[in-house]
Order: sequence, then C-alpha cells, then structure tokens
Amino acid sequence: MKIEKNERLVLIGDSVTDCGRARPIGERGGLGSGYPALLNAMLSSRHPELAIRVTNMGVSGNTVRDLKARWQSDVLDLQPAWVSVMIGINDVWRQFDCPLQPETHVLPEEYHATLEALVRQTMPHVKGLLLVTPVYMDTNRQDPMRARRDEYAAIVRDIAARTGAALADPQPAFDRHFSHCHPMSMSWDYVHPDLTGHMMIADAIYQALEA
Amino acid sequence: MKIEKNERLVLIGDSVTDCGRARPIGERGGLGSGYPALLNAMLSSRHPELAIRVTNMGVSGNTVRDLKARWQSDVLDLQPAWVSVMIGINDVWRQFDCPLQPETHVLPEEYHATLEALVRQTMPHVKGLLLVTPVYMDTNRQDPMRARRDEYAAIVRDIAARTGAALADPQPAFDRHFSHCHPMSMSWDYVHPDLTGHMMIADAIYQALEA
Amino acid sequence: MKIEKNERLVLIGDSVTDCGRARPIGERGGLGSGYPALLNAMLSSRHPELAIRVTNMGVSGNTVRDLKARWQSDVLDLQPAWVSVMIGINDVWRQFDCPLQPETHVLPEEYHATLEALVRQTMPHVKGLLLVTPVYMDTNRQDPMRARRDEYAAIVRDIAARTGAALADPQPAFDRHFSHCHPMSMSWDYVHPDLTGHMMIADAIYQALEA
Amino acid sequence: MKIEKNERLVLIGDSVTDCGRARPIGERGGLGSGYPALLNAMLSSRHPELAIRVTNMGVSGNTVRDLKARWQSDVLDLQPAWVSVMIGINDVWRQFDCPLQPETHVLPEEYHATLEALVRQTMPHVKGLLLVTPVYMDTNRQDPMRARRDEYAAIVRDIAARTGAALADPQPAFDRHFSHCHPMSMSWDYVHPDLTGHMMIADAIYQALEA
Amino acid sequence: MKIEKNERLVLIGDSVTDCGRARPIGERGGLGSGYPALLNAMLSSRHPELAIRVTNMGVSGNTVRDLKARWQSDVLDLQPAWVSVMIGINDVWRQFDCPLQPETHVLPEEYHATLEALVRQTMPHVKGLLLVTPVYMDTNRQDPMRARRDEYAAIVRDIAARTGAALADPQPAFDRHFSHCHPMSMSWDYVHPDLTGHMMIADAIYQALEA
Amino acid sequence: MKIEKNERLVLIGDSVTDCGRARPIGERGGLGSGYPALLNAMLSSRHPELAIRVTNMGVSGNTVRDLKARWQSDVLDLQPAWVSVMIGINDVWRQFDCPLQPETHVLPEEYHATLEALVRQTMPHVKGLLLVTPVYMDTNRQDPMRARRDEYAAIVRDIAARTGAALADPQPAFDRHFSHCHPMSMSWDYVHPDLTGHMMIADAIYQALEA
Amino acid sequence: MKIEKNERLVLIGDSVTDCGRARPIGERGGLGSGYPALLNAMLSSRHPELAIRVTNMGVSGNTVRDLKARWQSDVLDLQPAWVSVMIGINDVWRQFDCPLQPETHVLPEEYHATLEALVRQTMPHVKGLLLVTPVYMDTNRQDPMRARRDEYAAIVRDIAARTGAALADPQPAFDRHFSHCHPMSMSWDYVHPDLTGHMMIADAIYQALEA
Amino acid sequence: MKIEKNERLVLIGDSVTDCGRARPIGERGGLGSGYPALLNAMLSSRHPELAIRVTNMGVSGNTVRDLKARWQSDVLDLQPAWVSVMIGINDVWRQFDCPLQPETHVLPEEYHATLEALVRQTMPHVKGLLLVTPVYMDTNRQDPMRARRDEYAAIVRDIAARTGAALADPQPAFDRHFSHCHPMSMSWDYVHPDLTGHMMIADAIYQALEA
Repeated sequence: MKIEKNERLVLIGDSVTDCGRARPIGERGGLGSGYPALLNAMLSSRHPELAIRVTNMGVSGNTVRDLKARWQSDVLDLQPAWVSVMIGINDVWRQFDCPLQPETHVLPEEYHATLEALVRQTMPHVKGLLLVTPVYMDTNRQDPMRARRDEYAAIVRDIAARTGAALADPQPAFDRHFSHCHPMSMSWDYVHPDLTGHMMIADAIYQALEA
Repeated sequence: MKIEKNERLVLIGDSVTDCGRARPIGERGGLGSGYPALLNAMLSSRHPELAIRVTNMGVSGNTVRDLKARWQSDVLDLQPAWVSVMIGINDVWRQFDCPLQPETHVLPEEYHATLEALVRQTMPHVKGLLLVTPVYMDTNRQDPMRARRDEYAAIVRDIAARTGAALADPQPAFDRHFSHCHPMSMSWDYVHPDLTGHMMIADAIYQALEA
Repeated sequence: MKIEKNERLVLIGDSVTDCGRARPIGERGGLGSGYPALLNAMLSSRHPELAIRVTNMGVSGNTVRDLKARWQSDVLDLQPAWVSVMIGINDVWRQFDCPLQPETHVLPEEYHATLEALVRQTMPHVKGLLLVTPVYMDTNRQDPMRARRDEYAAIVRDIAARTGAALADPQPAFDRHFSHCHPMSMSWDYVHPDLTGHMMIADAIYQALEA
Repeated sequence: MKIEKNERLVLIGDSVTDCGRARPIGERGGLGSGYPALLNAMLSSRHPELAIRVTNMGVSGNTVRDLKARWQSDVLDLQPAWVSVMIGINDVWRQFDCPLQPETHVLPEEYHATLEALVRQTMPHVKGLLLVTPVYMDTNRQDPMRARRDEYAAIVRDIAARTGAALADPQPAFDRHFSHCHPMSMSWDYVHPDLTGHMMIADAIYQALEA
Repeated sequence: MKIEKNERLVLIGDSVTDCGRARPIGERGGLGSGYPALLNAMLSSRHPELAIRVTNMGVSGNTVRDLKARWQSDVLDLQPAWVSVMIGINDVWRQFDCPLQPETHVLPEEYHATLEALVRQTMPHVKGLLLVTPVYMDTNRQDPMRARRDEYAAIVRDIAARTGAALADPQPAFDRHFSHCHPMSMSWDYVHPDLTGHMMIADAIYQALEA
Repeated sequence: MKIEKNERLVLIGDSVTDCGRARPIGERGGLGSGYPALLNAMLSSRHPELAIRVTNMGVSGNTVRDLKARWQSDVLDLQPAWVSVMIGINDVWRQFDCPLQPETHVLPEEYHATLEALVRQTMPHVKGLLLVTPVYMDTNRQDPMRARRDEYAAIVRDIAARTGAALADPQPAFDRHFSHCHPMSMSWDYVHPDLTGHMMIADAIYQALEA
Repeated sequence: MKIEKNERLVLIGDSVTDCGRARPIGERGGLGSGYPALLNAMLSSRHPELAIRVTNMGVSGNTVRDLKARWQSDVLDLQPAWVSVMIGINDVWRQFDCPLQPETHVLPEEYHATLEALVRQTMPHVKGLLLVTPVYMDTNRQDPMRARRDEYAAIVRDIAARTGAALADPQPAFDRHFSHCHPMSMSWDYVHPDLTGHMMIADAIYQALEA
Repeated sequence: MKIEKNERLVLIGDSVTDCGRARPIGERGGLGSGYPALLNAMLSSRHPELAIRVTNMGVSGNTVRDLKARWQSDVLDLQPAWVSVMIGINDVWRQFDCPLQPETHVLPEEYHATLEALVRQTMPHVKGLLLVTPVYMDTNRQDPMRARRDEYAAIVRDIAARTGAALADPQPAFDRHFSHCHPMSMSWDYVHPDLTGHMMIADAIYQALEA
C-alpha cells in the first residue's frame, strides 16, 4: 500500500461521500453508509497491521465552491497523510435541476480553477492526494447532463495530470455494470449509488492506493 | 363539458394519481397534491354550477394487476358516471429497477389483457371512461425504459380505439416541455412530476372531458 | 405576457400566500400549496420558453405593518422584475377576532399609508408591481368584517389607480362562486381558501400578467 | 336542583360536547375542556353535598344518526337519572360544507324522527331528559346555514313541547353576546365556542336543571 | 363591578395560576386551563359590554422571590388597571418536599417583606390590587405544611389590611367542600386543584371584584 | 435465607410493585425501578451463590379484584417457590379519590375474602407465601384514608395469622422515617414512594425472607 | 462461482445476519447493514452478469430453535438455489447472560440435532447449503463463553463434514485481526461486529461460494 | 457515620456515576438510576436523622481530564463536606476501543498527575474525600484492558495512601461475584453494571463512610 502504518486518510466530497457520517468528524462507527465505510473496512480487514485512520468529511449538497470554504478546518487542520477528493456532481446537477437559480451553478471555469487551487495548496502538506472523478449513471453520452459530467471528469483528469495527484475513475466500472442491467436498478436519480456502486468506488480508490 | 351536473368522476391509478390522498376515499381536502386536486379545482372554479364530485382512488406503487384486485370496491361500488384510469408506469419500472424480482413485473401481454378486461367490464355501467397514458420523462427514445413505456402507451391507445374509451395522452406535452429544460428540473426519478407536470396531466384530462 | 423571459416574480403576502412555503426563500418545490405554486405551474406549463422564476415570500399572520419591516430583505434584495402584493385580511381580521388587543389592529389610515409607501418606494426598481385585493368569503355585505374588507379593497384599488400599479381583484369570482354553494364548502373560517379558491386567485393574477 | 343526591347525569352530543373527553367513558379528569367540565365544576362547587356524577359521552362529528347507533351502549347502559342531548349542528353543517356528499346529510325529516324516537325510548327509563338546541354563531338570520340551524332548533323545541322533555336554548345568549363583539372573537368557524361560549351553554343547562 | 369598561386585569402567580398558559403573554385562547380562564369566561359571558382584557402571567414553580425578579416586565410593563397576585404555596412547599435544599426555601420574613414591597411599589400605578391567599387541601390544621400555609395566609391578610389591597381567600370554600368528600377526590398532591377547585378560586376573585 | 438455591420468587401487586417493569414478564433488566429491583439486587449481591430468580408481576392501578382475574397466568403458571403479594392501596384509594364511581371500590369484605381465597388456593403449590401490608404516608391516623389503610392492613395481618403466610409490614418504618421529615419529602401523593421508601419495603421483605 | 446465473441465495441467521433488514423479505435496499449487504455488493459488482438474487432472512435474537419454527416460510417457500445458515451465538449467549432463565438455553444436544435436521431436510431441495460458524470475539479460549462457542463451532463443522454441506469459518480471521488490536475496537459486547468484521464474514462466504 | 448531620456529599465520575442524573445538578428524584441513588436511599432509610444531602455530578464518557475541566463548578462551588470520585475506566477504555484516536487516550502519567492534583487541591476545603477504584468485569487478569484497569486502580490506591484520602475498592466484590456467574449476566460490555453491580459499589462506599 502507498498509505503506510498509522497514517490518516481524509475523504472529502458531497452526498456520495457523506452518506450520513457523524458530525463534526466522521470516524469509526460514524463513517456513514457509503464508500468511506467500505474503504475503511477493506483497509482494516485486509491490513489490520497498518492501523490506517480513515476520516469522512463529506457534506451532502456540496460543490467545489463549498469545499473551498471549509478546506482549512475540514482538511488541513486534520493533518492527514492522504486526502481523497470526490466532487463535481452537484456543480453539474444544479445546472439541470435548478436552471432558474444561476447562483447555484458552478461552471467549468470556476470548477477547474477552484479544484486546482485546492490541490496545489494541499500537496506540499500531504504524502498523497487522490482525485476521484464524479459519477453519473445515465449511459446515454448524448444526454446533456452526462455530457456535462464527462466534461468535468476531463477537468479532474487534467488537474491530476498536471499536478501529479493520484487519480481514481470509477465511471467505467459503472458503465460496464450497466451493460448488464438498467441504471434504475442501482439508483432512481442516477446520482446516488446503492452499496454495489459504493463498492465499485471503494474498489477504485483501494486500487489507486495499492498500486 | 361531457361530464354533467352532479355527476361523479373517479380517478384511479398509481402514485402519480395518489399523491397523498385520504383513505379510504380521497375527496374534497383529501384529494392529495397531484393532478386530481388540480382537475377538481379547475372543474369547480370554471364550472361551479356543475357540482362535479371528484374522487381520487390512486394507490402508490400500483400496477394494473393491483387495480384489478380492488376494482369492485374502489371503482364500481362508488357508482361513478365517469372513470379515469392512468396506470402502467410501475408495470414498466419494476422490469428495470427490480430485474431480479420477476414476480413484480407485469409484462405487456398481462398489461394488455388486464386493462382491456377492466375497461370492457366497466363501460356498460358508466357514462364515460377515460384512459390516460403513463408518462416517463427521459426524452431519449432509445433508453430501454422509455422504449418500454412507449410500448405500453401504444397498448393504451389500442384499447381506447377498440373499445371506444376516451383517451388522454400527456406525454407529448412533457416532451415539448423538455425541449426548453432538462427533465431533472421537473423530477429526479423521471417518473414523479412536480406541480407543473401535474398541471399538464390535468390539462390533458380536462380537454378530453371538454371536447 | 407582460412578464418576459428569465424574469423573476416575487409574491409577498400573508398565510393565503405562504401556504407552507420553504424558508428563507420559497422556490421550486418550496412554493407551498397555494396560489403561488399554481401560478408557477401555469406559467411553467403554458410558457416553458419564458423560464419565469417565481418566488414566494408570504408569511402567515402578516399585516402590511409586517411587510414593511421585512420589505428590504424579502423583496428589494431579491431584485425581482415583478412584485405581487396580497395583504390586508389580517389587518382587518384582528379588529374582529382580537377586539381587546388593539396593538394588533392595523387601521385603514395606517394600512393606506404603509401600503402606498411600499408601492411608491418599489416601483422605480421593478418592471411591474401588482396589487391583489384581500379576499373574504362571507357574501353578506352587511357583515361588519366583510364591510371592513370591502373598505380595505377600495384602498387597494385607490392606490393602484393613483400609482399606476397593476391590479387583480379575485373577490368577484368568489362572490359568483358562492351563488352556487355556501362559503362553508370552501373554508370554515371564510379566510383560507381551498385549492379551488387558490385557482381563482392564480387565474386573476395570471390574467393581470397576461393582459 | 331537579337533579338529586347521588344521581348520574349523562351528557351526549357532538364535538361541542366532546372537547377531548376520555374514552370510553368521560368522567372526572376526563370530562374534556367544554361545557360538560364547566357544568360539573358548577354542580360540584355549588352543591358538593349532592355528589352528582357527570358523564360526558360526546363524540366529535356526530349527527343524530350517529347517536342512534350508539344510544344503547352510550346512554341507556350507563343507567343515568338524567340525560342531556345537544345534537344537530353537524346534521346542518354537512349540507353546506359537503354539498357533494349527500350521504353525510341528515335532513330535517330524519333529524326530527330520529331525535324524537330516542327521546320517547328513553324517558320511561330516566328521571329527566334535557334537550339543548344547537348553536351557530352567525348572527345574520338570512344566512342559509343560520336559517337551517333555526329550523332544526324549532324541531328540538317542538319535540320538547310534545314529549315533556326539559329544554335549554343557549342561542339567545350568544346572539346577545354578539351585539357587543363580532362572532370571530369567539370562533373562527362559528361552530366551536371558546370557554366563554361553553360557560353560556353550561349556564343554560344549569338553569334548566335548577328551575 | 369595580373593574370597568376596557380595563386590563393581570393575574400573576405560580402553577395554580399558570395551568399551561401561552408564552410570553397568556391571553384569549392562551389563558390556560385554570381559574384565569374561568374568570375570563365569567366576566366575558356575564359582562360582554365591559370588554375586560384578562392576562395570565403565572409561572409554574414560582415563589414570591421569582415574582420579584420578573415584576417589571410581567406586571408593570403591561400597564394593567387591576392586578391579582396568588403566591406562596411553593414558598411553603419547598420547606417540606426539599428539606435538604435550603436555597429553595422562602421563609416567612422574606415572604412578608418581598410581597409587601411589590404591593407598595405597584399600588400607585393601578386602580386596584387583589391579594389571593394560597390554598392547601389538607384539612388537618395540625399538619405542619397546613399550619405553615395558614401562617403565610395570615401574612397575606396582614399586608392587605395595612396597604388597602383587596383580598380574596378561597381556602374556607375548600375546607367546607372537604366536609363532603376527601381532598384526594380533588387533588392527589393537595396543591393543584381540579376544575371544581379552580371554579372556587374564580368565584372568590369574581366576588372580590364585584363587591 | 428461607428461600433456597435456584428458586423463583414472584412479586405481585399494584403500581408500587410495577414501577415500569417489562411486559409480559418482568425479569432481569425488566424488573422496573422499585422494590422488586432492589430486592433482586440485594439477593444477587449478597447471595450470588443462591441464584434466586426474581420476577415482578405488578400492574399499576390493580386492586385485589384485578389480582384474582390474572392469578392463574401471572402467578401459578410461573410455578414459583415463593410468592409475595402487596395489594390494597388502590382498593382503599378509589373510595376517596373516586367517591362517585362505586364500581371502582373494593370494600373490606370483598378485599378480605378475595385475598384470603388467593392465599389458600396458592399455599399448597408453593414453599412460601409472603403478604406485605399496603403503605400510606399520611402520619395522621385520624385521616379517613389512613384509617381505612390501617383497617386493610389489619385484614392482611389477620389472613397471615390464620393461614400461616409470612408477613412483612413496612408501614412502621415509614412512620418512624416521617418523625424526621414531612411525607411530602418522599411523595407528593402519599402513595408512591421514592427510592428511599422502596428501600424500606425491600428491607422489610428481605428480613422476612431471611428470618 | 459455484452459484450460477439468476440463482437465489437465502441467508438466514440471527442479529449478525439481520442488521435491520426489511420485513417480511430482506432484498435490494432492504438487505440491512451487515454481511448480507456486503456479500450482495461483492457479487453484484464483481459478477453483474450472474444476476444473483440475495435474500436476507436473519432475525435478531434467534437461536436454532427459532430457525426451525420459521424454516418452511422463511427458507423453503422462497425456493432458493443456495442457503447460508449462520446460527448459534444466541444459543450460547443465553446460557451466560440469562443463567436463571433456562427456558432460553439451547444446549449442545438440541443445537446439534436441530441444525442437522434442518440441513438434511433442505439439501434435497437446493443446489448448495453453506454453514457458517458463529463468531465470538473474546480471544481468551479459557473464557467459558468462548469455550462454549468453540464447542458449538465444532458441531457445525461436524454437521458439514457428515452432510456434505459447504462450510465457512470466519473465526480465525477475527482471531488474527485481534492480534493487532483489542476486540473492544470492533465491538463492546464481543458479539456484534462492526463493518470490518462483517467484511471478514462476507469474504469468508464469498470464498466458500467461489472455490 | 463519618459523614454527619446536614452535610453534603458530592459524587463525581463518568457514566457509571451519571446513570441519567438530572442536569445541571443531580439531586432527589434526579440522582439517576445507579449507585448514587442507591447510596442516597441507604443513607436516608438507615439514617433519616442525619439528613445527608447527596448530589450526583457524574457525566457519561468523562475521563479525569474532563473532571479537571469542570472541577471548580461541579465540585468546589457546591461546597460539599464530602466528595467521592470514581473515574478512570474511560481513560483506559479509549486506549482499546479507539486505538487510532490517540487524542482520546489519557495515559497513566496524565491520569496519575491530574487525579492527584485534584485531590490535593480539594482536601483543604472538605471534611473528607473518597477515591473509588474503577471497575472492569473481565475476570481474566491477562486481558490487556483488565491489566490496564488494574494499573490505574493501583494509581488510585497510591494517591489515597499518600494523600490520606479514603478509599473504596469495589472490584474484589465483582470478582467474587463472577465466581458464581459469567460477567455477561451483569453487563454485555463489562463496564456498565446492572443494579446488582451498583449495589456492590454503593455498599463499598457506604462501608467506607461508616468505618
């Protein structure tokens, strides 16, 4: 594992990360019901000797604009060795479900600039930083919201490439999965995965940490 | 109006009809928050002299198989002059969100036979019977669930044509609407409309009763 | 429509407007269950291309004195193109249901002065301002509270006439309606309409915006 | 007092009587918050030596048709010396607030026949039976619901006159009261009195028992 | 009546006065379920022309020490024409139910001095001030708590005599009542009356205001 | 101890025994918060080697008439080695707090006959049966309810003497206790003890089992 | 995988299986929060093409005696291809936490006979049956409850060996895990695992199905 | 008794002391359900003439670090004659159930220094100070958490010996108890006693105060 004995991993993001975690700090029994809890269980059951401390700091509804506002207290102050960031689906979604509320939209330029600034500000203080692309379950790439998600994912990949951050991209696993079943079998809103989807995200992050 | 003074209109269907109606009978303040309440308000405000009695008998989650089981008590026993039936989206949806629970699927043949039998059984007892096609908000006609919905809507139109039942088809209004905005602005699950969508359904039924 | 593409319409008033809207801002699914939600559904279903943003800022129990206290934050700060004001029934009602609490009474002089000041203060900042007369359902014009309501409605009409504000007067529609049924069929307290009454208010406002 | 030491008085009626009484029997701390509790407090504080047992058997929403259905268990089986019956306002009200639900209407003929039959069936088994006219607070005698209430009150007076039952008629006290204030100061729906109104009903019954 | 048209009467005290009144001001439907509500109903039903405004400012658990702390805001600021004070049973009770918590005890000297100071401070600002002796339902005058209550009641009478305040003493009515039944029939704790007891207190105050 | 290894002790009675025990059987963590739980803790902490099984079958509000109705299922069917019965305070209390509800009164003759019959029916099936006198905290022996309690306690002692049942009489401990403080310090209603009172009852029973 | 396309796997057991599953059938979003949900996510994410239907029928508090009582309805009637049974910790636990309630104890002989009978009754109707040994987290093998658990696990292994049922034994993984941390870090009661423990159980079952 | 008439005893500690006590001060009916309530009942029932005031200031989850933070307000400001301190099990437990959260661990050096400082700071202000060793119910002294508890208990004994504080050590009673039954019969987590365990703690403190 790239992550080593007694190190701390902070996971930050939106509702896909949050999943009912404890406040103010999500740890142990307060990791919520999503991929952070699964990742912790994978690390703890496969590598109990490493004693990795996993902390979930996701907040439902967040965009990258919200992450910026709480980055100091919710990431840097916790002094993690590793940080994982999965953000962007709300930045996209608000453009489609709240078209008349433009103050809720985080457009590509702001998304790109804000996320890259957070990454560059953080990397000197941590051993590793992992970017996770946002997931959207509509497999029709012509759907405007899916297309927009793909655009934001490309931004994430671009930032990772230029900053040297690690990258996890769970979307292909989802797309493959839906060659066997309709996305409605996982999620009525195409955004919030069931435990199978969270397992795919956790696997993607685990592999990125393992490589 | 085709519907006349002091007549009763019973609306039956699934959650799109139910919308929190009162039990056991949905009337007056207990019509729920969907198109039945809007239709009643339209009839009552535009034609107070007609004194139409609107009754909502929708039940969330119902398929046509469920309607059959409660048809006697929930439609015929109420002795309506007019009946409106909007059913089928759960018959379709379960095939996609519960692919491993085949006992929940109502396939086209069963849907066709059951709905037509209910119509034929009822028409001798009422002045008018209205069939409303189910609505699905994904505008991508290649999406398997949208394609399936279109197949079920064709069955509804076929039954109407062969039995002489009246027909209301709100789907085109939805499709036009989504040329101006993404379906996510109306519904996260593409099935349950907001009040704008219910207004479109109520308008379609009102016009069918008015013609 | 007088109201044009991408413009915002703020509706302010008392419980007849509020109807359980979301706080602090009532929009989209948080418009409540009254005429603001109906008006939004009418605008959105009939004119999706206009993308009108409807905002409900009603607060139950308010008099014009309360509107004045929150006018800056709840109307002007939202920068609407159009404002609709429906206020006065509590100004009247308290004089009859709380006769021993004179501090709760807003008498005609205060009502007139306060409402006119709000109108004159606002009109330079908006494209249109609509005044809606308060509704009371007792059809007996000799009833002291109905007579008082009529006096306040005359004040509203006078302000509209002298300031050039638009006017919607839903009371005649209610009076006509109650030639077919007793007001108890709509409301036990003669103040809070059912959905049929809200449809009549929404129709009156829609027509005023359409003319 | 006409009612004597250790005798039981059963009060039956609708929500004006019920007022949150205990089930199945309303006694002592379970008399509710209306005129039955006030009457009991008057009897107990002014005549503690009489030890009158007061029982409240009111049920909200009841019409005389409902009283008939539960008369054996809720009146006769309790073996009262005195019975007080205050019923009729729902018999009237449903004709005005539910005009489209005729199955809820108890028309004058049925009201007259049912109430008189209950009185005649009961008088041989009790020392005294008191009829209380229903109260409606609209002082406009031309209002159709007030006129209907006056018609039902005349039926009560007629039954009392022909059967020899005692009579209490609290309506004149309400009408006098509203020469000093508007009925809205007592009740938003003109049907359910506040404690001042219940005091007037209790006074009327007390006087009828005292004479 | 000593109290005249349009005057305000503020009733202050402990839980016997409070009885669940509304906060911050107990008026109209918020008078609670005790003697203040009964007194208001008596005044309003017998003298509607006087339009007396009754305000309940009782707070459960209060001693005279607590009244002093809130006298300005809860009595004087309300600018009443008449004030009624019923206080003392908690001053006494805490000496018996909390013998080990001496900080909760208000001994006779403090009680006397505090109450008299409140009376003398208030009389110049009001038309009338009424002192009501506290009630305790144990009829055994040798019981230490009953003896203590009698001592505090004597203080109340002494203050009334020396300051000219009006006096209401409901205890004799309770003692007479309990010659017909055991106090347990009114109250399990001998302190909180049922509605019969509240009627006796309201009668005593009414007579004091009427004389 | 009279009670021996692995034997079961069933405690039955009213609210003084019940104290919130679990249903249908009160054992282990479901013994409630009164003397049964204290007695179990005494037995278990002082004699863990005996492994006594303590079962609480008290039901709030019970009189001896209620015990009789559930004796088979709630005592005999549990096959206890020892039974403790503490009953009678409700038999007495209802005569004083519900004087007008004679159907709730269990008079001395019925109390005596019913309790003695239960004892005689049970003794052949158990190793020991313990009668506990009811407790009332008014120390004034002239108080009618205290006098009545003393009469019922005498009946309990008489039954014990004539049947050979064991006897525990906690009342003297209470009377001595109240020579140091007023009964209000233990209980506002003189019937339900605090934990100090329950300790005195548990001590009395423990001593009776120990002798 | 031994389990093949479109087959159903029913998991039955006690609270370790239950984990808040839906009633009456635990499937999809109603699989609870324990190893059944993890196993389903593993199967579904790694083998979406198999479309395995996982059903959780665990009931908290169950012993093998309880399984027997509901085996027909909760296992056989569901017609699974595979059955997994994890039972026994309550059979053991009650002997230690309820030593005085012998009716709650399922002793080794009954455990052995009942479980073997269920296995033999079921195997003819299924493709595979998997026995999972119960887990207890005290690593001190001299602890009487751990020793008892080991005895019951031996019974499970014996039944598997003699009937040909598959076997999963997660205990060794737990014991290894606790060489790195104290069992208190997983569970305060040494019986209910956290998600790390559930992951170890799911892994053990997955491997047994995979082999 | 060492503790004398009218003196106050403050008990402070963690959840074993807290047991649901009232806030902000736990007295009388607010002593909670643990050993403080039992100790108060013992003192009050055996020595009513002493009138000891027992105050429970336990707070669930506290370590000695938490006690230090609230010592002034929660101990010294209450001016007790006697103080009892039972603390340490959370200081130990967090090292085992939260191994990855070192900020929650109170290690022996900090425990020793903090507790001793509190004792030395307090003794000049009180008549007596009692130290109670923490209890842990695993009887296996090789268990790391039990061994750690024994180490902390030795610190408590050492502080008592060097400062002259009184000492109560309930652990031996627990160890003896569990020679007759498994600790699971008292507590699933080996930390929170049932009432039998609380009785053993109360007995130990009572004896220490009595000697």
